[in-house]
Amino acid sequence: MRVVKTIDEVRRQVKEWRAQGLTVGLVPTMGYLHEGHASLIDASHRDNDRTVVSDFVNPMQFGPTEDLESYPRDIEHDAALVEAHGGDLIFHPEPEEMYHEGFSSFVDMTVLTQELCGLSRPVHFRGVCTVVSKLFNIVKPDRAYFGKKDAQQLAVIRHMVDDLNMDIEIIGCPIIREADGLAKSSRNTYLNADERKAALVLSQAIAIGKDMVKNGEKDCAAIIGSMKQHIEAEPLARIDYVKIVDCATMQQIEKLDRPALCAMAVYIGKTRLIDNFFTEDV
Amino acid sequence: MRVVKTIDEVRRQVKEWRAQGLTVGLVPTMGYLHEGHASLIDASHRDNDRTVVSDFVNPMQFGPTEDLESYPRDIEHDAALVEAHGGDLIFHPEPEEMYHEGFSSFVDMTVLTQELCGLSRPVHFRGVCTVVSKLFNIVKPDRAYFGKKDAQQLAVIRHMVDDLNMDIEIIGCPIIREADGLAKSSRNTYLNADERKAALVLSQAIAIGKDMVKNGEKDCAAIIGSMKQHIEAEPLARIDYVKIVDCATMQQIEKLDRPALCAMAVYIGKTRLIDNFFTEDV
Repeated sequence: MRVVKTIDEVRRQVKEWRAQGLTVGLVPTMGYLHEGHASLIDASHRDNDRTVVSDFVNPMQFGPTEDLESYPRDIEHDAALVEAHGGDLIFHPEPEEMYHEGFSSFVDMTVLTQELCGLSRPVHFRGVCTVVSKLFNIVKPDRAYFGKKDAQQLAVIRHMVDDLNMDIEIIGCPIIREADGLAKSSRNTYLNADERKAALVLSQAIAIGKDMVKNGEKDCAAIIGSMKQHIEAEPLARIDYVKIVDCATMQQIEKLDRPALCAMAVYIGKTRLIDNFFTEDV
Repeated sequence: MRVVKTIDEVRRQVKEWRAQGLTVGLVPTMGYLHEGHASLIDASHRDNDRTVVSDFVNPMQFGPTEDLESYPRDIEHDAALVEAHGGDLIFHPEPEEMYHEGFSSFVDMTVLTQELCGLSRPVHFRGVCTVVSKLFNIVKPDRAYFGKKDAQQLAVIRHMVDDLNMDIEIIGCPIIREADGLAKSSRNTYLNADERKAALVLSQAIAIGKDMVKNGEKDCAAIIGSMKQHIEAEPLARIDYVKIVDCATMQQIEKLDRPALCAMAVYIGKTRLIDNFFTEDV
């Protein structure tokens, strides 16, 4: 397992693999890897001969008031985890390797990014689409792996790949949770003991929503209402959004009459956490 | 030489060539091919084992008041020209093959597109970057060929390829002119006999500008002034712009103290024509 910092090194390595007829999987991450990332690396290792993990806190997907500076980083820990899960290469560039002086191109879309996290984080998906496009062009993988925890991101990337004819298979992998239900996230590290306990309202609300769907509830407002009520009872929690959207368009719907995503973003103290479920997975 | 209409057919053909270890050049065009395009196909045929010519009037790069509907088309003529110049495949898709329902992604940039044609054609370069990205992802060529007549387009594409780490060599080819100096363009077909004669003010103004640069003139306003004066003497001509810009940024400059592009857009009757020269080529 190697850690490289330049685009040229990645390209040379992948070219060598390609010359041997090997397939390549890519797991794009912002580092500070946890079991969620590990499950993506496992999936890639299972499907491909070689796995590249990119480990890059992408400045372009953070807004000016967001946590770019404080976002946790630990490349030694990441390298050990990638090695343990059968990854072959970590691409860990400095920001200036990815964004040279005069950088001004971007990839974006006019739908899918307008709802949910796109509302609270207006530059976020432009940054995601741009850096993922760059990583795809650098690594040229056969397959790329993304977690369903970032459900809107997964939908946006699938749509981008389809619209722009990128010849890459996108694999979405299930949310990995702590024993008590909290979805694994690098940002969980921000939480103090009280907040960690309070953060359970997210996964509890998800369980409430899932149960209602399972029991045949079709009225989105009713589902959302029950979920919100549970979250609002927690004094440390502040709801950014709880919404149910059409899987294909990310537009809000009123009735569960098609494949839908129920997604939420909730501040616990200063930490913004997300969680979700797809009605098809219930 | 084959003409295909679907993305799948292009991919299958290119994969076959790749399996044989062959290199592939791409010449993106909007069809109605002339000697300018032929010179790009010749260049690709010289540099690569196989040459793909895309022949697609891209709706996304036309503004609502522009000539999308009237843009000339002649696929039979194009096929004969491509075959005569050693091209191997024409990709000639319908608009719905390139832009399916729900299409909403785009590639764009925040500089380089803000000056020259970007001012008069605000959606143009977004459309160009998006379709060229799609063609690059469909064909995955080693090299792609663009004419210097569309100088800003060439600069924008080079910048996009560099910013987004597309692993493709971009080759810029010289402007091809009629015997009397008019730059070859599919839009020349719009000109009636009087307009065809009047259109010579573009190449004549280019010659005036080149001469001044050759004679050591460094003051951009002086060069532009002489060029404009010549064009304004022609009653059928209406200047959109005559400007001198930094080659790297497409921002206007006052002194010729770095590599520069002198570019113009001029209406002859209702037809908008462009021409240019790079000071380095003088």
